[in-house]
Amino acid sequence: MSDPEKREKGVAFFKKLTVGTANPPSLSKGVMPEKFVDYTLEHLFGDVWQGDELSLELRSLITCTILVALNREAEQRIHFSGAKNLGVKREQLEAMITHAAHYAGWPVAASAFRVLAEVWPLEE
Amino acid sequence: MSDPEKREKGVAFFKKLTVGTANPPSLSKGVMPEKFVDYTLEHLFGDVWQGDELSLELRSLITCTILVALNREAEQRIHFSGAKNLGVKREQLEAMITHAAHYAGWPVAASAFRVLAEVWPLEE
Amino acid sequence: MSDPEKREKGVAFFKKLTVGTANPPSLSKGVMPEKFVDYTLEHLFGDVWQGDELSLELRSLITCTILVALNREAEQRIHFSGAKNLGVKREQLEAMITHAAHYAGWPVAASAFRVLAEVWPLEE
Amino acid sequence: MSDPEKREKGVAFFKKLTVGTANPPSLSKGVMPEKFVDYTLEHLFGDVWQGDELSLELRSLITCTILVALNREAEQRIHFSGAKNLGVKREQLEAMITHAAHYAGWPVAASAFRVLAEVWPLEE
Amino acid sequence: MSDPEKREKGVAFFKKLTVGTANPPSLSKGVMPEKFVDYTLEHLFGDVWQGDELSLELRSLITCTILVALNREAEQRIHFSGAKNLGVKREQLEAMITHAAHYAGWPVAASAFRVLAEVWPLEE
Amino acid sequence: MSDPEKREKGVAFFKKLTVGTANPPSLSKGVMPEKFVDYTLEHLFGDVWQGDELSLELRSLITCTILVALNREAEQRIHFSGAKNLGVKREQLEAMITHAAHYAGWPVAASAFRVLAEVWPLEE
Repeated sequence: MSDPEKREKGVAFFKKLTVGTANPPSLSKGVMPEKFVDYTLEHLFGDVWQGDELSLELRSLITCTILVALNREAEQRIHFSGAKNLGVKREQLEAMITHAAHYAGWPVAASAFRVLAEVWPLEE
Repeated sequence: MSDPEKREKGVAFFKKLTVGTANPPSLSKGVMPEKFVDYTLEHLFGDVWQGDELSLELRSLITCTILVALNREAEQRIHFSGAKNLGVKREQLEAMITHAAHYAGWPVAASAFRVLAEVWPLEE
Repeated sequence: MSDPEKREKGVAFFKKLTVGTANPPSLSKGVMPEKFVDYTLEHLFGDVWQGDELSLELRSLITCTILVALNREAEQRIHFSGAKNLGVKREQLEAMITHAAHYAGWPVAASAFRVLAEVWPLEE
Repeated sequence: MSDPEKREKGVAFFKKLTVGTANPPSLSKGVMPEKFVDYTLEHLFGDVWQGDELSLELRSLITCTILVALNREAEQRIHFSGAKNLGVKREQLEAMITHAAHYAGWPVAASAFRVLAEVWPLEE
Repeated sequence: MSDPEKREKGVAFFKKLTVGTANPPSLSKGVMPEKFVDYTLEHLFGDVWQGDELSLELRSLITCTILVALNREAEQRIHFSGAKNLGVKREQLEAMITHAAHYAGWPVAASAFRVLAEVWPLEE
Repeated sequence: MSDPEKREKGVAFFKKLTVGTANPPSLSKGVMPEKFVDYTLEHLFGDVWQGDELSLELRSLITCTILVALNREAEQRIHFSGAKNLGVKREQLEAMITHAAHYAGWPVAASAFRVLAEVWPLEE
């Protein structure tokens, strides 16, 4: 750890992002090396995500958009359910994915809808 | 042309997107075949972009985000200046690109900032 | 639904694409939102795929090629077995994937061959 | 050089691909190292492209499709004009690019149409 | 088979790469067509990998880097454990993946760490 | 600025990377927003690049490899000439690019060789 203040913010954000999810992702040392965990909690979550030019809700929508465009399914699992925690509406995610089908191709949208149905089922 | 109503909406949106830009992109038949122009004006601009689940401003921000994540510089030129026309603030684009640096890699952000500086200079 | 004629063509094509496959993909509302299903059946399947500049067989080969180049494994499952239904020969798919190894990298070819072996086993 | 027979085939193919083009790409040692030129002429052009499971015309269409899906504009310049030499029709390329817009995203299609208009202008 | 000398080198390398791994990848004809296996063993493993401008260890690190940047998880399974056989240290892979997080985005790093933890657990 | 010590290291590294190059990239505020410059100098250059698990030479080779795999030509200009400053040999870059042709596709290698010829000509 190199910056306790940022880390505190990062840990708080990570909890907010993942609270109540079925299988919260682990940042334990068994999978991620310590330095990567430090960068994630202090720099990415504790600094980048805290920038006030964009609301957390918008940052969440932007993050989900990138993950759809790049077809990063594993991270979609974290951030689609995280979007729910951060105030994004399901119909906004649906419209974003449908929109993305046209700018990144139908297959990334089809995959994203399958992930969305898993982590945030329609009939809730 | 197969759907005059959608086409009218699509043409109107295209004008709104590109009004006042230095070199508005051409949809003339010399470059794009007629069918692709039809799909763009009627389906993409005249139908997809008109969905009311997301505001035009949000659709613009989402589109720009995809174009940054996928490093589509030519289309960034159209949609970064289009974002200005649709109500997105420059500092929102800056924050989105900086955010995207962490989810899609530093190089796509560096490229996007160069395009942004061209089509929407800082000191305006 | 907004265009019954295109939808009819799209539904017919979807049946042709997926007939006889082990786990035909679902377009039910539980996974895909209604608007995305409409766009898929009416615009993509009912209009784009119906263009007579290319035969269905060639469109299938082109679609499979894109899915290999972009490493979209989930969609490969649908379109590799769909290729069989639309008249593409297995040795053409094999040669395309081997060709693609050189233009998109060995790993996408290796993944594609694993998917192909699952949905269209070699009859030795 | 390690395989004169394949090299001869590869050189012949390269001439066929690039004959009559405005700025034929150079494989001179000033840009490409010798080993890469050898692999290109002997393995890729002299062996892979010679496989008889697919006609040269189909291999050309497949190659162009990959280059569109992956947005490789520089290589599109070579292979779009090469497609003309190998028997692909312009309307087939147009339909392929329009099709690809839906599987790889609108921006790669828009870029590809601009390249196509440069190296194979529409004869209106 | 077309080049017995290269094939011998390629087969030897493949054994070195995969020795001792839990589920060594199969190059059997049931999955990969014969021509692709030939190209892999003779050209890729028997020629490209044998170039003495780079040590096997460096080629392994470079290969792993590409697989992380492009998010090719299936091939990571082979080459991360292969890296161990070829002399790369786990902490080098960790540092490369952490470095890659910044040039290719956080999600590819997170996925790569999960694969690494599977095929080369931390506590060995 | 938030961390003067890291920034000092980052600025020193940036000078080392770009010294003697024809058109050193600018990190001036006119193109990159202040926060992105801070993250680049303090976090990326002043922290990530300083990790001693990998030598600067190896980090440079890894960075170049990612930029080739992802076809980031603009950044290649910076890091190919930077590689020269950091101790990578031209023949190592050539071999890496030739290797990458097989894992990321021929077109990214062809593009990379063109950039390399521009910023680090063969006959030096």
